[in-house]
Amino acid sequence: MERAATNWRDASRRRGDTLYLDFGRHGVGMVTLEIEPHGDGSYDAPLRLRLVFGELPAEVAEADLPYRGGLSQSWIQEEMIHLDLLPDRVMLRRRYAFRYLRIDCLAFSGSFRFRNVTADTVSSGNYASVAPPPPGLDVELAAIDRVGIATLHSCMQNVLEDGPKRDRRLWLGDLKLQALVNSVSFRNFALIERCLYLLAAATDDAGLIPGCVFDRTIAARGCDAVDYALLFGPTLLDHLELSGDRSCVEELFDLALHQLELVRRTFGADGRLPQQPQWWVFIDHVNTLNREAAYIATYIYSLRRNAELARRLGRDAIAVELEIEAAEHSRRARNCFYDETSGLVTSGTERQLSFASQIWFTLADILTPEESIRALTGIEVAPDAVRPVSPYLWHYMLEALFACGMNERAWQLIREYWGDMVRYGADTFWEVFVPGEMKFSPYNDYRLNSACHAWSCTPSYFIRRYFR
Amino acid sequence: MERAATNWRDASRRRGDTLYLDFGRHGVGMVTLEIEPHGDGSYDAPLRLRLVFGELPAEVAEADLPYRGGLSQSWIQEEMIHLDLLPDRVMLRRRYAFRYLRIDCLAFSGSFRFRNVTADTVSSGNYASVAPPPPGLDVELAAIDRVGIATLHSCMQNVLEDGPKRDRRLWLGDLKLQALVNSVSFRNFALIERCLYLLAAATDDAGLIPGCVFDRTIAARGCDAVDYALLFGPTLLDHLELSGDRSCVEELFDLALHQLELVRRTFGADGRLPQQPQWWVFIDHVNTLNREAAYIATYIYSLRRNAELARRLGRDAIAVELEIEAAEHSRRARNCFYDETSGLVTSGTERQLSFASQIWFTLADILTPEESIRALTGIEVAPDAVRPVSPYLWHYMLEALFACGMNERAWQLIREYWGDMVRYGADTFWEVFVPGEMKFSPYNDYRLNSACHAWSCTPSYFIRRYFR
Repeated sequence: MERAATNWRDASRRRGDTLYLDFGRHGVGMVTLEIEPHGDGSYDAPLRLRLVFGELPAEVAEADLPYRGGLSQSWIQEEMIHLDLLPDRVMLRRRYAFRYLRIDCLAFSGSFRFRNVTADTVSSGNYASVAPPPPGLDVELAAIDRVGIATLHSCMQNVLEDGPKRDRRLWLGDLKLQALVNSVSFRNFALIERCLYLLAAATDDAGLIPGCVFDRTIAARGCDAVDYALLFGPTLLDHLELSGDRSCVEELFDLALHQLELVRRTFGADGRLPQQPQWWVFIDHVNTLNREAAYIATYIYSLRRNAELARRLGRDAIAVELEIEAAEHSRRARNCFYDETSGLVTSGTERQLSFASQIWFTLADILTPEESIRALTGIEVAPDAVRPVSPYLWHYMLEALFACGMNERAWQLIREYWGDMVRYGADTFWEVFVPGEMKFSPYNDYRLNSACHAWSCTPSYFIRRYFR
Repeated sequence: MERAATNWRDASRRRGDTLYLDFGRHGVGMVTLEIEPHGDGSYDAPLRLRLVFGELPAEVAEADLPYRGGLSQSWIQEEMIHLDLLPDRVMLRRRYAFRYLRIDCLAFSGSFRFRNVTADTVSSGNYASVAPPPPGLDVELAAIDRVGIATLHSCMQNVLEDGPKRDRRLWLGDLKLQALVNSVSFRNFALIERCLYLLAAATDDAGLIPGCVFDRTIAARGCDAVDYALLFGPTLLDHLELSGDRSCVEELFDLALHQLELVRRTFGADGRLPQQPQWWVFIDHVNTLNREAAYIATYIYSLRRNAELARRLGRDAIAVELEIEAAEHSRRARNCFYDETSGLVTSGTERQLSFASQIWFTLADILTPEESIRALTGIEVAPDAVRPVSPYLWHYMLEALFACGMNERAWQLIREYWGDMVRYGADTFWEVFVPGEMKFSPYNDYRLNSACHAWSCTPSYFIRRYFR
C-alpha cells in the first residue's frame, strides 16, 4: 500500500517542513515510520512530528482550520510523536483509516529524512475470495463495483464497522447492507454471524437489540435505533438466503420476533405508531424528515419479512399471524398516509413529502407495484420533497426501484449518485454525499465525515446480482 | 514513586478537565496510565489527552504560554495520546524526567477516571550502595546532601547525563563533577569508566575529545568545549584517586596529554592563548564573561594535574616537562592578568573582573594561597564583577575556597546557594540558579532549564568528604 513521489525519501527536512504522502488507495491499518538523520547528521534534541491521517485530501490539507464539529474532536486522526534518537523506526500503536498522510515537523534541531513510511493494512476480507465482476460490465459500473468492494473491505475488521475512521462500530442497519455485498464478494459469512450474535448479546433489559455495539466493549451498547431493531429479522432472512446456514438464524429468530413485540406495544389506540422518547427512529441523516410514515412502513416491512422467515423455518402458525397483522397495518397506513390524488405518500400532520416515505411504502408492499412506480417517479419531481442525504437511504431507493421493476432508473441512479463520487476521486464510498454540497456534514464539520462507510457499498450487490 | 491527593482516582473526568499529579519527588522513568470509563460508562469516541511532564511546577502550570526558547521546542516534555477503547493501560514509550504531571482531557464523549498513573524510575545508581551521611550533620546540610545525591541518581543512566530532561548527554565537564559525588555515594565506577571510554572513542581527526557525546549515537559528537577537553587528564587523576583502578587511566593517559598538545599549538608568539574560532571555551553559562584568564588558568591547571598523574603512573620524565611548562605559563599569566594593587585577577584587554578568573587562578596555583584568599574575598565585594550563573562555576568556587583553606566561606556558600534551592522546594539541584532571578534562562525560556542537573550535585561530595 505505498505510492508517493519517487524522491520523497531523498529530501532533507527540518523544522517547519511538511510532507504529504498519498498511499495510492484507501486502507485501514498501522503505520511505521523510519527516519534517519541527514546532512551532517548533527542534532541535539528530539524530533517532534505531527501526523494527520486523512481519507480525503481536505482532511489533511485543512487540518489547521478551527474545529467546529458536533462530535468529539478525538475522531480527527491526528498524532504528535517524538523520536528521541535517530535513526529510529516507530510503529504507531493505533489503527488509522486513510489514503493521505500529512507529516509536519514541529520541532527539531537538525536535518532528517524519511527512510520509509509504510502501512500494514488489515481487513477480515480476503480479496482472493472475490469473484470477478459480471462479464460485459462497462467502465463506469466496473469502477463503481471496484469502489464498493474496496469500501466493504476497509470496513471488514473484527466486526463489520460502519466507518473505519469514525464511529468504528457495528451498526445493525449497516450490517444488513454489508451482508448483501459480502454475499457477492468476500463471502465471509462467519463474520456476519459474529456480528449478529454480538448484537443479540447486547439487548437491554426489555430485550431490545441496540442500534449498534462496540467491538470490544459490549457493555457499552449504542443508540436504540428502533428501525434498525426491526431490521434484525429481515437481516436474518437475508443471511439464510445468502449463506444457506440455518442454525444461526434458527437460534436468533425469537429475538427478531421480540423486536416486533416491543414496537407492537407502543401502538396508540388510534392505530398510529408514535415515536417513543427513549427510542431513535433513524431512517436517514436529516433532522427535518418527518419519520411517521417511514417508521410504520418499516414495521410492516419487518412483519412481512419475519413472516417469510417463519415459513422458511417451518413455523407457519407464526407466519400466518404476522401476515394478518401486516395486512391490517398496511390497510390502515395506506388510508392514513397515501394520497390517491397525487399518488404520493405523506407523513405527519403536516403531510410532509419525502423520498423516505415512498421508499418504505414500496418496500413494505403497502402500495401496489403500479402505485409504487407512480410514487417513486412522482417524488423525484415533487417540489420541496425531503431528499435522501445518505447513501443508506439511497440504497433503499435502489431496492424500491428494483422491487417495482424500475431497473432502468435504478441503474441510472447508481451511475449518477455513486458514479459522481467516483468522478470526484472516491476510492471508497462516502458516509454522506449531497451533490453540489461537497462539505455537507451531519456533524457540522466535514472533516468528521467518514469517506469509507459501510452503508454506501451496496451498488456492488446490485451490479453483481442484477447486471445482465 | 507515587503520591497524590488520595481521592484523585475517584474523580470523574470529562473533556476540558485537567489533573495535576505530584509524584512526591523527582524521578526519571516510564509512565503507565490506566484509565477506565466512568458514570454510565457510555462513550463513543477515542479519549484524547495531553500530557505535560515537569520537573518544576511552573513547567506544567505554564505549559500554555507562548514558546520563545532558543533551543528546540521538542525538549518540552509534552505528549498527545489517544485511547481508543476503555478501560485501557498505556505505557508511554519515552522516558521523562519529572516530579509533576499535568493531564488535560482535550477531547472525549463520555466520563472517565484514572484507575492508576504510575512511574517506573530508572537509574544506574543503586541507593542501597549509598552510605549514610556523616554523623552530626545538621538539618540544612543533611537536606542539601540528600538533594545532591538525588540529583546524581536521576542523572545516572546508560551514561552520566548532564540533565535527564534536557540535553541528556554525557558532557565531560559534568562527568568530572559527577565522578566526585559518585565516589562518596553510589560508587558505580564502571559507569565512570564507560563514560571515559565513550568520550575517548569520539575524538575528531585531530584527536580532540569532544565536550560531549550522545549516548547511543557516538557519531554525533557534540560541542568542542576545549576547556572540558583540558579537564580529561584531571578527571583521570580523580578516577585513579577515587577508585584506585589504574588500568583505564593508564590506557587513556596519552589521550589526555594529547589534549594539552592541541592547545599548546595555539599559543601566540606573545605567550597569550587566544580562543580558536572552532573551539568553544565554556567556563560558565554567561555570554558577557571574558574567558581569557580563566582559559589559560584551566590549561595550567591541566598541566599540573596531568603532571601529578604522570608521576602516579611512573612516567616521571613527562611529569617534569609538564611541571616546567606549567611554571613558565604560570609566571607569564600572573604577570599578564594579576593586579597586585587590587589583589584581583583581570581578564582581556578590558581587564574584566570576574569570579571565574579568581577561581581558576586559585585552582591552577598561579596565585599563592594568601593571594588566592585575597582574590576570592575581594571579588565578592568588587562592583560589576561578573558572577557565576551556573552551579558548575559555583562548584569550582567551592573547590577554590577549600583549596586555600577558606572552609568557613565554602560551607556558608553551600548553605546559601544550594540551601536556597532547597528552600525553594528543589528536590534535585538545578542547571542554573541566579538568586532573585527565578526565571533566568540561558535559553530564553525557563521551561527549558533543567531542574536536575549533574553539575549541581557536588555539595554532597564536599559534605561527605570534608564535614567534621
